[in-house]
Amino acid sequence: MSKVEIYDTTLRDGTQAENFNLQLEDKLKIAQKLDEIGVDYIEGGWPGSNPKDIHFFSRIKNYHFKKAQIVAFGSTHHPQKIPQTDPNLKTLIEAKTEVVTIFGKSWDLHVKDALRISLERNLEIISDSLAYLRSHVKKLFYDAEHFFDGFKDNPEYALATIKKAIEAGADCIIFCDTNGGTLPFELETIISQVKSKFPNISWGIHAHNDAGTAVANSLMAVHLGATQVQGTINGVGERCGNADLCSIIPALKLKMGIDCVTDEQLAKLTSVSRYITELLNIAHPPYLPYVGRSAFAHKGGVHVSAVKRNPQTYEHIPPQKVGNIRRILISELSGKSTILSKAKEWGIDLESEDPEVQKILQELKDLENQGFQFDVAEESFKLRIYKARGELKKHYFRLLTYRVHDYNTLDGRPIAEAEVWVEVKGRERHAISLGMGPVNALDRALRNALEEFYPRLKEMSLIDYRVRVLPETSGTEAKVRVLIESRDKECVWRTVGVSHDILEASLQALLDSIVYKLFLDERREKC
Amino acid sequence: MSKVEIYDTTLRDGTQAENFNLQLEDKLKIAQKLDEIGVDYIEGGWPGSNPKDIHFFSRIKNYHFKKAQIVAFGSTHHPQKIPQTDPNLKTLIEAKTEVVTIFGKSWDLHVKDALRISLERNLEIISDSLAYLRSHVKKLFYDAEHFFDGFKDNPEYALATIKKAIEAGADCIIFCDTNGGTLPFELETIISQVKSKFPNISWGIHAHNDAGTAVANSLMAVHLGATQVQGTINGVGERCGNADLCSIIPALKLKMGIDCVTDEQLAKLTSVSRYITELLNIAHPPYLPYVGRSAFAHKGGVHVSAVKRNPQTYEHIPPQKVGNIRRILISELSGKSTILSKAKEWGIDLESEDPEVQKILQELKDLENQGFQFDVAEESFKLRIYKARGELKKHYFRLLTYRVHDYNTLDGRPIAEAEVWVEVKGRERHAISLGMGPVNALDRALRNALEEFYPRLKEMSLIDYRVRVLPETSGTEAKVRVLIESRDKECVWRTVGVSHDILEASLQALLDSIVYKLFLDERREKC
Repeated sequence: MSKVEIYDTTLRDGTQAENFNLQLEDKLKIAQKLDEIGVDYIEGGWPGSNPKDIHFFSRIKNYHFKKAQIVAFGSTHHPQKIPQTDPNLKTLIEAKTEVVTIFGKSWDLHVKDALRISLERNLEIISDSLAYLRSHVKKLFYDAEHFFDGFKDNPEYALATIKKAIEAGADCIIFCDTNGGTLPFELETIISQVKSKFPNISWGIHAHNDAGTAVANSLMAVHLGATQVQGTINGVGERCGNADLCSIIPALKLKMGIDCVTDEQLAKLTSVSRYITELLNIAHPPYLPYVGRSAFAHKGGVHVSAVKRNPQTYEHIPPQKVGNIRRILISELSGKSTILSKAKEWGIDLESEDPEVQKILQELKDLENQGFQFDVAEESFKLRIYKARGELKKHYFRLLTYRVHDYNTLDGRPIAEAEVWVEVKGRERHAISLGMGPVNALDRALRNALEEFYPRLKEMSLIDYRVRVLPETSGTEAKVRVLIESRDKECVWRTVGVSHDILEASLQALLDSIVYKLFLDERREKC
Repeated sequence: MSKVEIYDTTLRDGTQAENFNLQLEDKLKIAQKLDEIGVDYIEGGWPGSNPKDIHFFSRIKNYHFKKAQIVAFGSTHHPQKIPQTDPNLKTLIEAKTEVVTIFGKSWDLHVKDALRISLERNLEIISDSLAYLRSHVKKLFYDAEHFFDGFKDNPEYALATIKKAIEAGADCIIFCDTNGGTLPFELETIISQVKSKFPNISWGIHAHNDAGTAVANSLMAVHLGATQVQGTINGVGERCGNADLCSIIPALKLKMGIDCVTDEQLAKLTSVSRYITELLNIAHPPYLPYVGRSAFAHKGGVHVSAVKRNPQTYEHIPPQKVGNIRRILISELSGKSTILSKAKEWGIDLESEDPEVQKILQELKDLENQGFQFDVAEESFKLRIYKARGELKKHYFRLLTYRVHDYNTLDGRPIAEAEVWVEVKGRERHAISLGMGPVNALDRALRNALEEFYPRLKEMSLIDYRVRVLPETSGTEAKVRVLIESRDKECVWRTVGVSHDILEASLQALLDSIVYKLFLDERREKC
């Protein structure tokens, strides 16, 4: 079984992504999570490029990591400087990491058009920068930026830069597909030429996803002998992103027999993948291989029954190996068996003969005819199962009436105002609230009325609110479906409402969300 | 230059995706868009599985396609039937398409665990089904389901199923990686063995993305001689999706020199990719290769200045080739040229030196900062250009104030009521109206007030209304963007509004829509 090391650059190259900006505290938290899933190297930042990264390296020294080594990243020295006086190399050494990665130019076009120096001078810069760093660090990696594009344009020159880095003592040469445009069979051809020139080097791969082939290129490289793979969690990174370690690690471990992380570390992959998007309050892409919410979701018909007989029929790996779960989607196509398997998934004890199963199935079909969709709002459906089973007998509260008023100020600003009457624990409460729009006003008014009785509602916040017109209706008369995503400290849940009236639909979803929170709290208190 | 055909299955396999449910009208609209980008085949559905797909095939006959051929999809006959009595094969023939694709089992595990029949019986079913269909259709394709998994388990059997399909007259054999777990180098090995067994067949590839390698596998297959590639727009499909044609088509055309679509068709790829997500009111994934909003977005620093010197330094292809644009994220440099090119597209005479260009650019940037998005509501932006040029000087009408009231009847039904005051042609009008929800009430009240002056407003109807929460905001306090699609007898137009208040945002989009209609009518009367 060959040895392959995982090198994470979420904290450096990942932050080049649009909408992915990390604060120092975020970076420290993510570094700990990366150690939990067993990466070998964590590239913490480019200390020469910004003070936040300098602080990161000083703070990270106080953390203990089980496996991961911290890496500082930087460029070769400035063309107008020598290594001894180059501020970038200085900050790299001052980061005091045992491992340093330094990148240099492999593509003659970049040397000419970006650096604007001679090809010969670039070779000197590579040699001198690495030779200087060599004595200061334990491990020294060389990122050959744009290696594949460079090789296609001018193979002799690209290889000459690699030769300099090897001679100057790099421990590993990383071939970078910086623009992400290389296809796997091109990589195969180029790497085989490189290997014939340098048969005994340690080498790695750093791929970008502009052609949609970053994961494939990385795995192809390992297949051809790479011993280091660089990538990011969820494939975040500039433009279309970097190679996704959440796809690479399980492929290495489960498909290629490479024991890069332990079984326990692999089983944390899904939770770490989702942790990072939640930290940033961005949606977790549902279709992500291995770790996405839809990755093992089966929709109706033939597939569902085959998967129940033998999961291998429509699953390329067992989902639990990466900490994910199988999901049988609830839809108009589903029958009794879907409801039973969902109940099982949720830990609800329901048997095929139970009389409520037929009742639940009928309600599901009726509501779906009205335009409800439960595969994206499972908790609204869960509440209905609990209700059918009599476990939600008690009214936490009852909405007696509501009223929303939307008008504008003298200078034209819109004003939204909502009023609710509720009955809670035998008492009546009235609340009125302004809001940023009518739905927010309703949300606030409900909380005003209820928090006296249920103070833990303060823990709950709404993280997403979406509206869709149902396609079979049209124009402003259409029915709309509102989906709300809520969370508290521990859980995330999704609820749904449908009506011709967008405010009524929003209210249904809001009420379900509040009831689900109250139900959750009650269960937690029982434990 | 070799010939490779593009086979789209967005309308069939794509709809297996979670959250991707298409109505009949959606399917007809998407089929037309697919023809625009030059796909060879459009798999319209599985008529044997649901009545919606039967209707699709009967409706689609009335459409004229420039290039695409419509394909009906189905399975081999039921084990308890013969082809002549099999209802599934019957509906396939009744779909009356010139092309039919039929799938059969290649994996012994599926034959045993899913079909529960003997291996021998499965071979008969493949032979008989294809032989029967052969005389009824012009082109017959055979999808070898789970071929790669089947080959890994039992290569002799997998090859025996293929032999049956070839002998029964299939025009093309499609090797399907149904579970999506195959890696590119595995595919390479397996395909080379298949080719040595069947050196002269026409073959294609159908890949799923469970390992994150669907695009790579598809391109690898073409590299190895495949002449048909199956996939979906944006890679939608069950679990992690199908191979993304939006990545495959440009790679074939721009990187592999295969002339599968024209330059003009390729340049429509981004707009078709976004059209489909807009139609479904789901977010367009920003990091999608080639067509994503971030695909050519450069974030600060070194990359931006290098790209300005020579775009090739950090772009693997020129974005305009696929209809996308370069975006410089931190600077305000993009834009002027976009406005000029849009104006040109709309037939508005605007020159770079015109003083209104700067003014329009500023307004565009301000509005985009507020969350407006004009690429999906071009008419709202067009109105602003006309305004800046003084061509929309005249107020058709002015909204003086409005008020919306939403409450409920004694039996709980929601009531929505809207009131508007408008000034039209020097006179004031007041109208009040009930509606199916508050937006419909506003729409009706405005029409009540205006139709006396503009009777042609009666011709106008609203055909779509969609709401999306803007991603940088959250919960019920979020800003929302409302898109409205309207039409009269001749035209369809789309307008947009943004606000924290969903009713205010709806009103903005409604008002733009009405003004655009009035403007259109005025122009028509002039002609």
